[in-house]
Amino acid sequence: MQRTVVLAALALVALAAWATAERSSDLERTVVELRDRALGDDLAYELLRSLTTEVGHRLAGSPGDRAAVAWAQRELRKLGFDEVRTEPVTVPHWVRGNAAGKILEPYPQETVLLALGGSVGTPEEGLTAEVVAVPDLEALAELPDQRVRGKIVFVNRATERTRTGRGYGEAGVVRRNGPAAASAKGAVAILIRSIGTGNQRFAHTGATRYQDDVPRIPAAALAVPDADLLAAQLATGRRVRFHLELGSHYRPQTRSANVIAEVRGREAPDEIVLLGAHLDSWDVGTGAHDDGAGCAIVMSAGRLIADLPRPPRRTVRVVLFANEEFGLSGARAYAAAHADRLAVHQLALESDLGGDQVWAFATLVDPRALPEAERIAALLEPLGIEALGNEARGGADLIPLRSARVPMADLRQDATRYFDYHHTLDDTFDKIDPGAMAQNVAAYAAVAYWAAETPTSFTPAPEREGASGGR
Amino acid sequence: MQRTVVLAALALVALAAWATAERSSDLERTVVELRDRALGDDLAYELLRSLTTEVGHRLAGSPGDRAAVAWAQRELRKLGFDEVRTEPVTVPHWVRGNAAGKILEPYPQETVLLALGGSVGTPEEGLTAEVVAVPDLEALAELPDQRVRGKIVFVNRATERTRTGRGYGEAGVVRRNGPAAASAKGAVAILIRSIGTGNQRFAHTGATRYQDDVPRIPAAALAVPDADLLAAQLATGRRVRFHLELGSHYRPQTRSANVIAEVRGREAPDEIVLLGAHLDSWDVGTGAHDDGAGCAIVMSAGRLIADLPRPPRRTVRVVLFANEEFGLSGARAYAAAHADRLAVHQLALESDLGGDQVWAFATLVDPRALPEAERIAALLEPLGIEALGNEARGGADLIPLRSARVPMADLRQDATRYFDYHHTLDDTFDKIDPGAMAQNVAAYAAVAYWAAETPTSFTPAPEREGASGGR
Repeated sequence: MQRTVVLAALALVALAAWATAERSSDLERTVVELRDRALGDDLAYELLRSLTTEVGHRLAGSPGDRAAVAWAQRELRKLGFDEVRTEPVTVPHWVRGNAAGKILEPYPQETVLLALGGSVGTPEEGLTAEVVAVPDLEALAELPDQRVRGKIVFVNRATERTRTGRGYGEAGVVRRNGPAAASAKGAVAILIRSIGTGNQRFAHTGATRYQDDVPRIPAAALAVPDADLLAAQLATGRRVRFHLELGSHYRPQTRSANVIAEVRGREAPDEIVLLGAHLDSWDVGTGAHDDGAGCAIVMSAGRLIADLPRPPRRTVRVVLFANEEFGLSGARAYAAAHADRLAVHQLALESDLGGDQVWAFATLVDPRALPEAERIAALLEPLGIEALGNEARGGADLIPLRSARVPMADLRQDATRYFDYHHTLDDTFDKIDPGAMAQNVAAYAAVAYWAAETPTSFTPAPEREGASGGR
Repeated sequence: MQRTVVLAALALVALAAWATAERSSDLERTVVELRDRALGDDLAYELLRSLTTEVGHRLAGSPGDRAAVAWAQRELRKLGFDEVRTEPVTVPHWVRGNAAGKILEPYPQETVLLALGGSVGTPEEGLTAEVVAVPDLEALAELPDQRVRGKIVFVNRATERTRTGRGYGEAGVVRRNGPAAASAKGAVAILIRSIGTGNQRFAHTGATRYQDDVPRIPAAALAVPDADLLAAQLATGRRVRFHLELGSHYRPQTRSANVIAEVRGREAPDEIVLLGAHLDSWDVGTGAHDDGAGCAIVMSAGRLIADLPRPPRRTVRVVLFANEEFGLSGARAYAAAHADRLAVHQLALESDLGGDQVWAFATLVDPRALPEAERIAALLEPLGIEALGNEARGGADLIPLRSARVPMADLRQDATRYFDYHHTLDDTFDKIDPGAMAQNVAAYAAVAYWAAETPTSFTPAPEREGASGGR
């Protein structure tokens, strides 16, 4: 009897193991099919052509923003998702207005610049002041206040080109913190060298942050060749005076929306695999790399899963977030609206580093699920994607999900050329590589399907240091 | 006696041959020294930094034009030429004014464009019309007039990237002849795809030509991504309407100058080796490649010759021509002012294809001087320059010298990337390679010195077909 029980138990274990292997094998087969179908598909590329042709740029609160929300709903409905809906998001509405910058002395020349996102304007007639240059914010901190007072600070910090985008992270602090730091020392305005890797003559905009305890001063980014020109004029040793005009201002807050599409899970529809990207863009270029590409990639990955004969166990939810650029309004609205369901988010991914190839895969999942992550990684390897371990960072729109310990995965893209285009007039469809887009879709579809189908739970994500950290 | 005379004659011939060989050897030694000194010198690069920093763009008739003439005289005087002077040139004064173009239907989007040089403006409120697209001027010619009347013609002709710049020559006809061709069919304006090889979002300006028998219609070049956008909207099959505003207009003709600097020839000062480039630029960018680089190259080559302990036999004359871009005013003024001396121009060269490496050498000299050309070519070979024969074309500013059969040489530069920057906002100093600049100076100094020193006359150049042909 004893022996019979043991044998029966062993048989059950064997049966369970066999069943798991079988399921695993089905899962793998489906993932390989999805992946390979994606590689032969141009849907993402064509969706992005459509978005950039029919909508163009789409800053939060602008007419383009509204057109983009309408476009996304229309296109997602065509793609055969089970449900397409919007969720309301309140967004700021900043307007760039005109921008002009001219070196008046010693050698008069016009420059190419853009206001930083959120900058206040200058008086209508502009402002004119002497320029004081520093290589970075550390050097600015060391300047005596009287060297800065009444002047225009020029921070000439270069952005390093890297595959990971690390250079952007390092230089970006100038854009975010420079205006407040210069104002604290009495500057009347700030010019920064564009946070960008190329030397094409485009200024790179992007959000800045003021501090409540110092005046908000006009802030603009010079195109890299113009930063070089200003530096060259300063290098003559002669006094440099600059005239700046910015018409930037805020209008009242307005409404936008997160656009959401779902493939409803067949067994656990409340458990969510979230594929995110942000629908808004800066008000220059057509937001092709940032982040039209991400939208098109996750829409296409979701569509491939929706096309399967049998939906996965869990729900695959595509979320096109409103207003990432100007304060993560959509991401915060999502986290608030779904607060009671974040604990059943199986995995969240965001595509927000352009349209170039994915080169690495990282997870942030319950360590017990790591063998599962390794199995996914093995299927990504033929796409040229290496596995990096369990320290995924998630995209900006996933920041509000961190404190709820939502598991995340990164499909890290090659950022080598991304910051040539990022936040410029030149972020247009012609810069997109259709083959790289298809590789992205393959990777997103594979990871999303696996996460949605596997019996293994990825939750909760491990706690991590700096989980409340900034962008 | 008879025999003595023969012997004496033979001795004289031998002496002459020996003397020639000796001179040749001195000449070669000096040329090699000049060439190698140039390769280690950064004068051209630094002159161009100075021009782009202290003057910037310099369209004929503009304040920049005047500043450039003053700059050139000042810098040439510093370089130790025997004489620096100006010769007056009357130039047109076209002003670009504002430019804006927007697709109104079916999908409203702003575009990046520039008026073509010489374009008339639109009414102040702009003009709005339906767009009719053609791939090239041949297709435009075949369109029935009623398909064009009252519309904006859009010519979407791409520019091929080539080392020789051939693609520019082929596509450029659209810019030069498109406005008159569209007007002849009743168009109200014309938009062309920029004549440029890159897809950076810069419009490429450049001179157009109207015809007296048809109305002058506003003419603008769309940046390549914007031409793609317009084509993508047209490809939807929906009616496309475009709104164009150009503030372009002419002001009264004004004065500019050719700036001339000479190393006076020690034996035949009236015989001239002319090193040309044009000092004017378009009113966008800082005219770094076009043609600040050429100015800096010929100034530096001339300076190296001026620095020699003994001046060459003939005069080396550096000519920085006024207003190449807008009708060759400086070139024509030079030809007129020196009409009675063109027959004693030993050789003319112009540098006007940017700052990249020279890859080929060609001459257009009296065929009896070809062995001499071969000897020069041998000394250019270590610079990576191949010899192409006796069919030099000369630069645009040398066109008015053709009919006088002035011998010419080409030092042809690699134009692979030149037409990415040409006539755009992005033609700035950071695009210049200092090593390539030095190689250019080495080649110009070598050819100029040889031509100025050799006893061999290069005149007259052979007649050639199409000698009166256009640019």
